Amino acid sequence: MNVLIVFAHPELCSFNGALKVRAVDVLKQAGHEVVVSDLYRLGWKAALDADDFPGAWTDPDFLDVSAEQERVSAAHETPPDVLAEQEKVARCDLMILQFPLWWSGMPAILKGWVDRTMARGFAYAEGRAYDSGPLRGRRALVCTTTGTPSGLYGSHGTDDDLDRALWPIQHGILGCLGFEVLPPFVARAPGEASAKQREEYLTEYAERLLAEADTEPR
Amino acid sequence: MNVLIVFAHPELCSFNGALKVRAVDVLKQAGHEVVVSDLYRLGWKAALDADDFPGAWTDPDFLDVSAEQERVSAAHETPPDVLAEQEKVARCDLMILQFPLWWSGMPAILKGWVDRTMARGFAYAEGRAYDSGPLRGRRALVCTTTGTPSGLYGSHGTDDDLDRALWPIQHGILGCLGFEVLPPFVARAPGEASAKQREEYLTEYAERLLAEADTEPR
Repeated sequence: MNVLIVFAHPELCSFNGALKVRAVDVLKQAGHEVVVSDLYRLGWKAALDADDFPGAWTDPDFLDVSAEQERVSAAHETPPDVLAEQEKVARCDLMILQFPLWWSGMPAILKGWVDRTMARGFAYAEGRAYDSGPLRGRRALVCTTTGTPSGLYGSHGTDDDLDRALWPIQHGILGCLGFEVLPPFVARAPGEASAKQREEYLTEYAERLLAEADTEPR
Repeated sequence: MNVLIVFAHPELCSFNGALKVRAVDVLKQAGHEVVVSDLYRLGWKAALDADDFPGAWTDPDFLDVSAEQERVSAAHETPPDVLAEQEKVARCDLMILQFPLWWSGMPAILKGWVDRTMARGFAYAEGRAYDSGPLRGRRALVCTTTGTPSGLYGSHGTDDDLDRALWPIQHGILGCLGFEVLPPFVARAPGEASAKQREEYLTEYAERLLAEADTEPR
């Protein structure tokens, strides 16, 4: 199995980073190929903007980003950093989005990875295709960490809130793109947890990944 | 009334841009003060990262972004671009987030505005405070445009999907911060609409804004 981990935490030594390291270790040990896109260390450009289309636009006076994405894709002029990510996505069997939940969503750098990488002409064509999308057949998994227990998803929050927070990612992005979306792995407030609880999260995550790796895609 | 419009579309002449222009015109004409943060033209830095905290960290070996946000806020060392946005937010009575819905969410540049501007020490303190947040008493409005009718929110989608897409923004961000969240204004697939339909959207939006401006906050 070929696994792509898209990692979006500014601190390598965070618990989020520890989950990424554990995933790499356990999957490699089991004989799988693992590629990590570490967006902060890559210095990933987050904003989808005119700089992604340095050539002549379809309409020089009007930037239509999805039309330009389609044009540069057809002309093999996709920006090199975006192309590299698209090649990783195209090759993977399982894509893991690994990030801390900030304001009920992905950090901007990861949203920008989606905005730029999942470009029209590559990830979708006429409309957004759900189960007929070009990336269908791949699996995707969200692995995230939440903030303090006093925050939204802790003792004052509910699991419903977490489901709602993940809907745009799991359904609006991954499902739309044709991925089979696996149940998310969520470590709640690891910064407040005991060392034992953190180790349990890591063990549980490793077991989840190995089980998924042994499961044939639908 | 003091209105802050945070505008996040790469193309000024988009319909999204037209909604922003109409809002500025109609509100100014009615005697309100309007400030626009045009994130693409500002060259807004989207990623919340170590560069936001150039001084010594609390723990030099470990970047805890929310702890650092709180530290620089207390030390009056918040980055100038972030501080400028915080001052605009602090002064406003109504904040409008004006953006195209990309992948069921905000463009990365706007998520990055939230990640960086709504910093601990400024926008929240111990936990996230809902109706006890320091920004309570302000109103907020999401004004967004969707893609083609063949997309998620068009003929194959449902209004439920739109509600779900906006939940993390309206509840997870704005509600959490203490804003009174007004019903969103959504222009569906303006790129596919007739000129008459687009003009109707603009008129309807102007009427909405004037009505809100005449309404006392709760």
